[in-house]
Amino acid sequence: MRPLKETVLFHDAVRMVLDGAVPIDRVERVALSAGDGRVAAHDVIAEVDVPPFDRAAMDGYAVVAEDTFGAGTHSPKTLRCVDRVFTGEMPVRPIGRGECIEIATGAPLPYGADAVVMVEETERDAGGAEFSVRVLTPVYPRQNVGRRAADLKVGERVIRQGQVLSPSQVGALAATGVASVDVYARPVVAILSTGNEIVEPGQPLAPGQIYDINRFTLQAVVERHGGVAVPLPTAADTIEDLSAAVDAAIGVGDVLVFSGGSSVGDRDLILDLLERRGEVAFHGIAVKPGKPTAFGRIGTRPVLGMPGYPASCLSNAYLLLVPFLRKMARLPAWQPATIDLPLARRVVSTTGRHQFYTVRVGDGFAEPAFKASGDITSMAQADGYIEIPAQTDVVEAGTTVTVKLF
Amino acid sequence: MRPLKETVLFHDAVRMVLDGAVPIDRVERVALSAGDGRVAAHDVIAEVDVPPFDRAAMDGYAVVAEDTFGAGTHSPKTLRCVDRVFTGEMPVRPIGRGECIEIATGAPLPYGADAVVMVEETERDAGGAEFSVRVLTPVYPRQNVGRRAADLKVGERVIRQGQVLSPSQVGALAATGVASVDVYARPVVAILSTGNEIVEPGQPLAPGQIYDINRFTLQAVVERHGGVAVPLPTAADTIEDLSAAVDAAIGVGDVLVFSGGSSVGDRDLILDLLERRGEVAFHGIAVKPGKPTAFGRIGTRPVLGMPGYPASCLSNAYLLLVPFLRKMARLPAWQPATIDLPLARRVVSTTGRHQFYTVRVGDGFAEPAFKASGDITSMAQADGYIEIPAQTDVVEAGTTVTVKLF
Repeated sequence: MRPLKETVLFHDAVRMVLDGAVPIDRVERVALSAGDGRVAAHDVIAEVDVPPFDRAAMDGYAVVAEDTFGAGTHSPKTLRCVDRVFTGEMPVRPIGRGECIEIATGAPLPYGADAVVMVEETERDAGGAEFSVRVLTPVYPRQNVGRRAADLKVGERVIRQGQVLSPSQVGALAATGVASVDVYARPVVAILSTGNEIVEPGQPLAPGQIYDINRFTLQAVVERHGGVAVPLPTAADTIEDLSAAVDAAIGVGDVLVFSGGSSVGDRDLILDLLERRGEVAFHGIAVKPGKPTAFGRIGTRPVLGMPGYPASCLSNAYLLLVPFLRKMARLPAWQPATIDLPLARRVVSTTGRHQFYTVRVGDGFAEPAFKASGDITSMAQADGYIEIPAQTDVVEAGTTVTVKLF
Repeated sequence: MRPLKETVLFHDAVRMVLDGAVPIDRVERVALSAGDGRVAAHDVIAEVDVPPFDRAAMDGYAVVAEDTFGAGTHSPKTLRCVDRVFTGEMPVRPIGRGECIEIATGAPLPYGADAVVMVEETERDAGGAEFSVRVLTPVYPRQNVGRRAADLKVGERVIRQGQVLSPSQVGALAATGVASVDVYARPVVAILSTGNEIVEPGQPLAPGQIYDINRFTLQAVVERHGGVAVPLPTAADTIEDLSAAVDAAIGVGDVLVFSGGSSVGDRDLILDLLERRGEVAFHGIAVKPGKPTAFGRIGTRPVLGMPGYPASCLSNAYLLLVPFLRKMARLPAWQPATIDLPLARRVVSTTGRHQFYTVRVGDGFAEPAFKASGDITSMAQADGYIEIPAQTDVVEAGTTVTVKLF
């Protein structure tokens, strides 16, 4: 057996992992309806004016503003209504002095008109095809008019390269008439659980076996943070099986994430494989849980070897994989929701190791919830976690801690 | 034309919309790999112990703890190593006094052993099949042993009904061997953009026409907040076309969301339709933008009639549709990320209307970014929004405001 002798500091591990994350350059075109949350691969420049014409911003009457000057409740200006324009139609008639045209919000402004009087500020005859409108309030030129190109002008940048699209930005693209958008591909993460004892949920357990957990937690984290998870079949703990699994993983993934096999037993072979087929950046981090974690590369593919213990694997997924993956995916750093609370009970930490410590939130306190690295309930029965720096030995009850919520 | 005469207060509108949101009762079974973020429809009870056996928590040697008492660096206890157990195997031999068995992390503890000595705290002969191990540190009973059922016990609740599954909870389900999980169905939202002027992006624009924006922004918001969006073909502004569209929408959606047609023009027909085929809860809200918004129901289906203007439609999607939809989807209320910043410039608000006002974040200030209700760039070129209560007329430059980030 080969003890883990030298660990890297947590912050060095994060830095090395981030240094190894190369933002994806692959571009794919997606339908606009699939654009939300994706990262724009190019600037998008408007090829049409939005709106493409001057239009009424209110339901009312298109007028020559000057005809309404001096109007008041007791001295209305009377205009002859000569036409009606609905949305989606072009006005047939131009407007002359003393005339108005009934107009719906969004309909193109008739030629000759320069303002719209809101319907609420008018009275009308119960007339037929042509009728009179009394304007009770004056309008100034351009009032209640949405000007052509007021929203977006031909040649204006709608989206900039690298922008993470939000619903409104998808809407802005739609406004310019484009039906699809070029975005950076999501990093594909090949996920491999190793271990002779690992069985797929849904199968019967033989003696000595346990169900695979890490494949599911890793997949969920990857998909929450901009990646595409490709779980591979569980690999047995032989160098041949693992090497074949690596070949399969390299075929599908931009990144390989293993769980298990990064500790120090004779059958913990990920490290051997990294050394034999690629290079090791570090093996062992001064974190708790999650110490037996390896990082390196095989060919151009970054490889993250996670601990087999499910709480360790998942805590390192939050601490290392998430920043790594978001950099590859060109997403901004994760900002988990946080809550500051007094700690309900004293927590004794391991000196020299950065600690990821789960807590439950309730009754105005952060209640320690961590059980053991091997227990997924250390995470699943918690609401979030605190981080305790390596140099801190004890966090006393009552200390205000910042809980990062899952 | 029919002016909007009576508006409801913003907070009343929110309450009425929430009152109309009935949480979805439909249950569907999804593969565990699709469980993250879904809402559990039942309690899930563990049917196996996790782990199913006592196991080594460290690589080392399984021992009878008592045999190690008194061990020290200068007075090691020497044990005869009689076997080796890997993960995924059952130990063949029981352990006797004075003996130890080499064991890998996660492997089942041999019969007779009650503790594991870490490999780091031992020395060994360079022996053959049987060799001697010198234990340098004593262990107490159960030390470095993961006890059967320490993580989850048969009969223990793994997930409770109504819980929104996180990666770790998906992992806990995997740990108990289940391959799928019953979750509440996502509410299906039929989305319909109305208006004779509306054209699908990707098509050519005829004079007087504009591209559909709201379908895309609504779809993105719906899918971010736990719904399934089903956009329907754009409907023309005739009561017949709209009525047919409503029939189609009722066929697919738990909720109908229209945009356009909720203002006061002669051709704004959603209200007519609601009155004729269902009932109207309100028509007109004291918000800005987004006043011409209707809510009601047709049969059992809630109907939200959004303004046609894209900034109004989207701001009301954030203010009304999101809380409505999250209640239907059984998700907790949305907690957008926020940032408190001084306002860069004075904002004059409309008295009596709750205002949704977009801002850009930069240089330590919240910079007003709202252009007009008709401009999607009012939202797309902003980073978030502030809300200005109805009774506030002016927010002075320098006032600290809470920006809700998109």
